[in-house]
Amino acid sequence: MEVKLKGVFTPTLVPVDEKGQINEAEMRRFLSWLIDKGVHGLYPNGSTGEFTRFTAEERQRIARITCEVAKGRVPVLAGAAEANIRETLKACETYAGYGARAVAIVSPFYYKLGPESLYAHFAEIAKNSPIDVTLYNIPMFASPIDVPTIQRLSEFERIIGIKDSTGDVAFMLRMIAAVRPNRPDFTFLTGWDVVLAPMLMIGADGGTNATSNVAPELMRKLYDLTVSGQWNDALKLQTTILELFDLMLYPFEFPDGFRAGAALRGFDFGQGRQPSTPKQDENKAALARTLRCMLADSGIVEPPAGGCAPRTGKSERDRITQIALEIVEQLEERGLICRKP
Amino acid sequence: MEVKLKGVFTPTLVPVDEKGQINEAEMRRFLSWLIDKGVHGLYPNGSTGEFTRFTAEERQRIARITCEVAKGRVPVLAGAAEANIRETLKACETYAGYGARAVAIVSPFYYKLGPESLYAHFAEIAKNSPIDVTLYNIPMFASPIDVPTIQRLSEFERIIGIKDSTGDVAFMLRMIAAVRPNRPDFTFLTGWDVVLAPMLMIGADGGTNATSNVAPELMRKLYDLTVSGQWNDALKLQTTILELFDLMLYPFEFPDGFRAGAALRGFDFGQGRQPSTPKQDENKAALARTLRCMLADSGIVEPPAGGCAPRTGKSERDRITQIALEIVEQLEERGLICRKP
Amino acid sequence: MEVKLKGVFTPTLVPVDEKGQINEAEMRRFLSWLIDKGVHGLYPNGSTGEFTRFTAEERQRIARITCEVAKGRVPVLAGAAEANIRETLKACETYAGYGARAVAIVSPFYYKLGPESLYAHFAEIAKNSPIDVTLYNIPMFASPIDVPTIQRLSEFERIIGIKDSTGDVAFMLRMIAAVRPNRPDFTFLTGWDVVLAPMLMIGADGGTNATSNVAPELMRKLYDLTVSGQWNDALKLQTTILELFDLMLYPFEFPDGFRAGAALRGFDFGQGRQPSTPKQDENKAALARTLRCMLADSGIVEPPAGGCAPRTGKSERDRITQIALEIVEQLEERGLICRKP
Amino acid sequence: MEVKLKGVFTPTLVPVDEKGQINEAEMRRFLSWLIDKGVHGLYPNGSTGEFTRFTAEERQRIARITCEVAKGRVPVLAGAAEANIRETLKACETYAGYGARAVAIVSPFYYKLGPESLYAHFAEIAKNSPIDVTLYNIPMFASPIDVPTIQRLSEFERIIGIKDSTGDVAFMLRMIAAVRPNRPDFTFLTGWDVVLAPMLMIGADGGTNATSNVAPELMRKLYDLTVSGQWNDALKLQTTILELFDLMLYPFEFPDGFRAGAALRGFDFGQGRQPSTPKQDENKAALARTLRCMLADSGIVEPPAGGCAPRTGKSERDRITQIALEIVEQLEERGLICRKP
Repeated sequence: MEVKLKGVFTPTLVPVDEKGQINEAEMRRFLSWLIDKGVHGLYPNGSTGEFTRFTAEERQRIARITCEVAKGRVPVLAGAAEANIRETLKACETYAGYGARAVAIVSPFYYKLGPESLYAHFAEIAKNSPIDVTLYNIPMFASPIDVPTIQRLSEFERIIGIKDSTGDVAFMLRMIAAVRPNRPDFTFLTGWDVVLAPMLMIGADGGTNATSNVAPELMRKLYDLTVSGQWNDALKLQTTILELFDLMLYPFEFPDGFRAGAALRGFDFGQGRQPSTPKQDENKAALARTLRCMLADSGIVEPPAGGCAPRTGKSERDRITQIALEIVEQLEERGLICRKP
Repeated sequence: MEVKLKGVFTPTLVPVDEKGQINEAEMRRFLSWLIDKGVHGLYPNGSTGEFTRFTAEERQRIARITCEVAKGRVPVLAGAAEANIRETLKACETYAGYGARAVAIVSPFYYKLGPESLYAHFAEIAKNSPIDVTLYNIPMFASPIDVPTIQRLSEFERIIGIKDSTGDVAFMLRMIAAVRPNRPDFTFLTGWDVVLAPMLMIGADGGTNATSNVAPELMRKLYDLTVSGQWNDALKLQTTILELFDLMLYPFEFPDGFRAGAALRGFDFGQGRQPSTPKQDENKAALARTLRCMLADSGIVEPPAGGCAPRTGKSERDRITQIALEIVEQLEERGLICRKP
Repeated sequence: MEVKLKGVFTPTLVPVDEKGQINEAEMRRFLSWLIDKGVHGLYPNGSTGEFTRFTAEERQRIARITCEVAKGRVPVLAGAAEANIRETLKACETYAGYGARAVAIVSPFYYKLGPESLYAHFAEIAKNSPIDVTLYNIPMFASPIDVPTIQRLSEFERIIGIKDSTGDVAFMLRMIAAVRPNRPDFTFLTGWDVVLAPMLMIGADGGTNATSNVAPELMRKLYDLTVSGQWNDALKLQTTILELFDLMLYPFEFPDGFRAGAALRGFDFGQGRQPSTPKQDENKAALARTLRCMLADSGIVEPPAGGCAPRTGKSERDRITQIALEIVEQLEERGLICRKP
Repeated sequence: MEVKLKGVFTPTLVPVDEKGQINEAEMRRFLSWLIDKGVHGLYPNGSTGEFTRFTAEERQRIARITCEVAKGRVPVLAGAAEANIRETLKACETYAGYGARAVAIVSPFYYKLGPESLYAHFAEIAKNSPIDVTLYNIPMFASPIDVPTIQRLSEFERIIGIKDSTGDVAFMLRMIAAVRPNRPDFTFLTGWDVVLAPMLMIGADGGTNATSNVAPELMRKLYDLTVSGQWNDALKLQTTILELFDLMLYPFEFPDGFRAGAALRGFDFGQGRQPSTPKQDENKAALARTLRCMLADSGIVEPPAGGCAPRTGKSERDRITQIALEIVEQLEERGLICRKP
């Protein structure tokens, strides 16, 4: 039997070139760097990896490159959801051939399916997949999978775990209570970076955390501190990561903030595939400066030339900034306000 | 200049064979029948057409077949949203080549984008598309497009209309007030069948209505009655359509109810691409019997052999049925209830 | 049997003096003016009347004053929901004594009750009330009442109607289809001013509309135009009312915009009971200027001394203003922006 | 300076007699028992205490009785929100006179207020209250208070803490990060029983937990285990409490499940103030049997005469039961199902 999936998996960002094509050289360099920095595994074709913005062929290429870079060093958990079950199973087969440890299948999206249909969907995959499967529950984007359905699905040996991005600690407790007695090998990963430490404390096995694209050493350290019982230090670091995560998540369109953060580590991610307006670009640049200062506080990047103003730790304010920046543009258009020079 | 899009467009269902492949012969027969029954246009690759469950190649084939069948008879409005803008523009070009009248581009989904990003997205498409574009707003599945953004986008000549599936009459009034003064040629279509008549009354130009797959003659009649001012008859028919729509929408996973309804008109739609459990199939069969009785009331299908019990017009109850059927299964499993023999 | 309730009911605002106490003289003057301007009925202690911000004794006084002013001129539909059923029934009795035509009972709020509990709640009231009862459905503030429950409750003769504030035209169609066959006398009122005309077109009997506090003559005219079949004029006026309503609803805390609008008609409503910050007061003043211009367009108030800039009919923008104004304050605090002088 | 509020506060249920009146003798007996069982404080007039279903006079009486029973033994945190600020301040004064340690003021409900208005509201109270104030954030019932507003309000010395019922661990981390640096004395209490232990682990000071009405000794033990670092035992007990809480919360209208649970401890809570149908009563009785078995597992009540079937720990299923029971009734009515004898 394979060893249980554990630790911090990076849902990897995809660098693109100036034409929007996958920048393979940079991608390989980035993935290698992540492994060097200590992440426990790689997770291509996740939400952070913008899987919906690539074609089926591109997703295949992304998985292949990742498996090649990871080979023998860390396990790969490859996102394999495609347009329908037949295509998904083809991807499972292909990724098994690439040497992925398992696939992650996001719950069907666009249409919101009920529990019985979700069961039918994942059961069909579980029965036919040649590779281990983890469920992926992310209700903010896809059909929510409830605990009874997770429990029913855990009866399939092929299904070996779940990645849950709700960030809901009580939900994690409920899942573990429902599944672990019969499936001690079942892996629970949280996709919500801001509660990784509490999730580990209540029994989760690890996380697939977007922040580990930007600060892999911090996420790894958070994991190590927590599982080794150094709770006070873990909690302090968790708060740092929360502020970082909030700044990268809320004021940007997802996953632009994480792309901006990872770029500060010395990688060229390109413009991304989703177009933006000049004003959005200006805002992004301003936020990236704040982000650099925040990362500099943790000692993992150099502060900007002009130095950083003392920050006050008011990360929640930045959520407001997100909404504000869009609106400010509209107010400017209407001539109601001007920006400070 | 092309004539304005008007009337009832059918967001066409796609028949599949026992292997889940597109059943082209049945599809052509079905599309021809729709045109014969009087729909004003065809709309392939919409939500009703399960566009997300087909591959990019299949979507292309669906659009091609539809254009071939429609040629010279009714305009085709082809859903052309793909994984990213480059792929979407390729589809625009291809569908222009097939002779589509325009494309419909659903708002980006999975990720929820803000207004500024939506503007950037559609502006990029509008600037580069070789074919007229209609926006497609369906907040229950995709990023909502707000009125100021619609207004900004209406400044592109290439954007000639919007399909809105909110069913919100006030929202339609707001859109029309914001856009029509500068763009009298802009088309407003409602995707919410249960308010087609009121929407036409307040200025909408037509609808893209799933129900027209099942009862094209009724949807066409509803349109004709309303635009010719026969309001009392229109209202009566609207209520009939509401009951039909509610039964096809709520107790089924979308668009299974519409597939079941269209099958009653003599077409073989196959099992569909989303798997179901045996219990779900049983429930679907029971609902299809009710549906047949309802369609028989309107005189467009034969009643079932055993006849129909008098119905009470309590269509809202059926929404409860939807939830109930799933739950009843679970209660049965737990041994708490049994079904009436 | 009493005649059926019909037409435009004003959910009346309550003027308060500088100490926050009910300003009875101004209230009487205001109510009389509303009747003179043609509203069909008065509805004290509704959401617009801020019933939750008054004590039980004050609500009683408000109902009494309203009945006294209305006496012999228009019917009063008095909000009578209290902390529990016993207190509610006491209010029913009291308001019957005042000469109210009926009471309106909002669905229980704070706790969100399910259909069976809502049935039990209203059934208990229906069985014991000495005065006719209308249900009040306002899901944005209170437990939603679904159509099957409304249908069950319509079996009580004491329940003579419903005020629905969803603004959902399909929901209105469903209610009417479910209830009217057995209860042709049942009254359907819409609380969503922006769709009064379409609601009347599909069979509603009238509305309880906050805007009629501000522009009673316009709401009355909208009703008259619609029921007399002058649809084009009705639709044009409906659009005007939509813009007015949106400006009073979205950029203000409810019902402050309606208080500001009614004040422009020459009544002193005072500061209200909910405190505001100095910045909010500034914003309100700015919005009130826009509101005055809008009302001046309809010829019911004088334009401001300096005249009005041409307006562009972009009412949706004002929703953004609502969010923006709060945020702008926060951005100013942080020194990120300044306001145009 | 007063000592900081800490530990488990019981948001106390109110026993009523057969006429629905406060059963004072039983109430005193119940409150005394809670103190004997080790809760750290009492919290009358909270959501669990159904404060909205009592009159202002009754709320005053409830606070007075609680202070009398608690006197000298445990602190009282009294819910003091009334219809408006003047009435609320009167209650503050009265409860100060009764000897309450502090008051808890729920965020305004019914109307949903924005951050600026919430600030104005609580600032006005903070400036004028003669007694310490805790904020009460419960977004499922009342206007949500965001972190920047909590931070601004923490500048008032009178505001000494917050009770948060979101159950969101990340939100708690954000609040603590924003407030504690400047206000180390500020108290953070969680109202979400199922995450009490994780909340304490990340820095919360305690909870106001409905479950402590039913199992005060377990909640106290959970607190003691967690703060003394016995994490494994704490986690196990937390899971037990989660199952108990879920069964009392989801299948019942709140707080009926907690009333049913506390009744199993030997107190007569009466029928409650919200009426129910005979079928609901039947369902409640069935659920109470399950609840008794669950409490018996923890050794705090006797199992029922007939013993208990082995349970499977599938607490999530019970949420489904909640929905199911209502629907089953409707299906029975329609003759579609029968219940197992």
